[in-house]
Amino acid sequence: MNTVAFVTRRAFLVFAAFLTCASTVMAQADPLPSWSDTAPKKAIVAFVERVTRENTPDFVPEPDRIAVFDNDGTLWVEHPMYTQLAFILDRVKVMAKEHPEWNEQQPFKAALEGDLSALAASGEKGLLELVMTTHAGMTVDDFQKIVTDWIATARDPRFKRPYTELVYQPMLELLAYLRANGFKTFIASGGGVEFMRPWTERVYGIPPEQVIGSSVKTEFKERDGVPILFRLPEVNFIDDKAGKPVGINQFIGRRPIAAFGNSDGDLEMLEWTTSGGSTPRLGMIVHHTDADREYAYDRKTDFGRLDQALDVATDNGWVVVDMKNDWKEIFPKR
Amino acid sequence: MNTVAFVTRRAFLVFAAFLTCASTVMAQADPLPSWSDTAPKKAIVAFVERVTRENTPDFVPEPDRIAVFDNDGTLWVEHPMYTQLAFILDRVKVMAKEHPEWNEQQPFKAALEGDLSALAASGEKGLLELVMTTHAGMTVDDFQKIVTDWIATARDPRFKRPYTELVYQPMLELLAYLRANGFKTFIASGGGVEFMRPWTERVYGIPPEQVIGSSVKTEFKERDGVPILFRLPEVNFIDDKAGKPVGINQFIGRRPIAAFGNSDGDLEMLEWTTSGGSTPRLGMIVHHTDADREYAYDRKTDFGRLDQALDVATDNGWVVVDMKNDWKEIFPKR
Repeated sequence: MNTVAFVTRRAFLVFAAFLTCASTVMAQADPLPSWSDTAPKKAIVAFVERVTRENTPDFVPEPDRIAVFDNDGTLWVEHPMYTQLAFILDRVKVMAKEHPEWNEQQPFKAALEGDLSALAASGEKGLLELVMTTHAGMTVDDFQKIVTDWIATARDPRFKRPYTELVYQPMLELLAYLRANGFKTFIASGGGVEFMRPWTERVYGIPPEQVIGSSVKTEFKERDGVPILFRLPEVNFIDDKAGKPVGINQFIGRRPIAAFGNSDGDLEMLEWTTSGGSTPRLGMIVHHTDADREYAYDRKTDFGRLDQALDVATDNGWVVVDMKNDWKEIFPKR
Repeated sequence: MNTVAFVTRRAFLVFAAFLTCASTVMAQADPLPSWSDTAPKKAIVAFVERVTRENTPDFVPEPDRIAVFDNDGTLWVEHPMYTQLAFILDRVKVMAKEHPEWNEQQPFKAALEGDLSALAASGEKGLLELVMTTHAGMTVDDFQKIVTDWIATARDPRFKRPYTELVYQPMLELLAYLRANGFKTFIASGGGVEFMRPWTERVYGIPPEQVIGSSVKTEFKERDGVPILFRLPEVNFIDDKAGKPVGINQFIGRRPIAAFGNSDGDLEMLEWTTSGGSTPRLGMIVHHTDADREYAYDRKTDFGRLDQALDVATDNGWVVVDMKNDWKEIFPKR
């Protein structure tokens, strides 16, 4: 690029930045329009104003404005089953064409018949076998393509929409609001990291390198003289419960100042985030209370159980979002 | 923040951005002043111009402009020994006050006497014991403080400067040049990730979350009712050789388009980065050829051996930097 072209491009970028800023300011009249004017919204705005007000004891410099989000049940729907489980069941069906023996063999038989209770009966061992069969034994590039193709075509049976449209509009606004205020937003999910990365940038504005999740081991090797990364059927890391603060520290290397979750799997992440440090911290739990517009569940469910974290939320100063009352919209408009 | 204050702040930021852009443009007259006008500099500039030229087949969108850098010997000095080893030897001396038995016990005796050949004789097992003794058994916060204090006071014996000043000025310019062109810069080092993160942002402009390295396992637990992350004396991940592409994929989730290294430990990272993809890739090796201003070594050294990677560099189209001829300056001016 020669200097004149560079200057021109720079000038354009500055102008574009100005337009972006201007439109942001207009939108900022209400940065969280899908949130009711209740306690959670007030807590979010108060927190952001406190940590961004310069020359006050609560001020947090931009690089330390780290916010972490659980994915399943916090950013998108996790009922009637985790979306990744729907992916697994679909993959087993596709792969079964080359595995006729699966018709009589658990846990594949249960998966093929969509028999969730038989699947549950196969236990963690059975589920892990399904995960490894569908998630390993190929290169990272191949798996990325499989996920990308599936997520583009799969539809949720109840809402008849792509899963990437069953994300929570209020949380999309929250992500954008935090980023507009100098936060860096990360996902810290128990789900598979390579199952999320192909679409999180498009859907949440969160790039792959800001997604933390569970993973299988990968191996670097040559195949036909070409270097590849091959996915092995072996657990590398489970980013759930006590694994979440471990994963966050491993990937980010600093403690977040805000954490958003919805289940007991997020308990330790919330504890780690909201303890320590002299500046304000925000911990928030999305409580699924809206059976009409989404789902209502907490202490008794196989997907996203919220029990212990709900018990200690008040004592820890965590904000509990009552979806039914605190969210005007659930999903983005079609 | 009220809207007026917000608008004012935004206006200020836009103005500040404009000033930044203007000064960047001026500096861009020569973005790499410490590089001689030889082949490596030309290769860098040509590569950056190709991947940033819109509406051409070589154009790479900003999010995919990922560049990875080895640290030891690529961004800062690694002779006469890795800086992290100097840290270990210093730590052993400090800790020895509470371990009188170390005076007679290897590998500690060798460490206390600075006897590098006896240390080498203790092998990988001995070195690992020293690493675990000095790097584990405390919280991540405590270790961060130990590193921060050490790096602020330790001095390199030959150059009599802090180690963080023994970084390569041409590479600092390269990092800034890439970032000014929309690249995101990462470190992928065999060194300990928690040994680098406390200072990489200040020294290289690379934030902790963009540092990939070797690590020990950490455990989340409560101590006196406070959640902590405790460092265990157990290897979690070795980010070297074939581990580098694995670590890069695990942390970043996409393949870099540029990689910079200096030793055989970077071979697989260079292979992974420069193979695959339809757009240009840049692989570069810093060859230490300047015994007067820094050090001269390649095939025969214990620290940063460059042998196999040098053999295959030409065939792979990697650019080899001859420090003596290609770099006008080695370190930042005092």
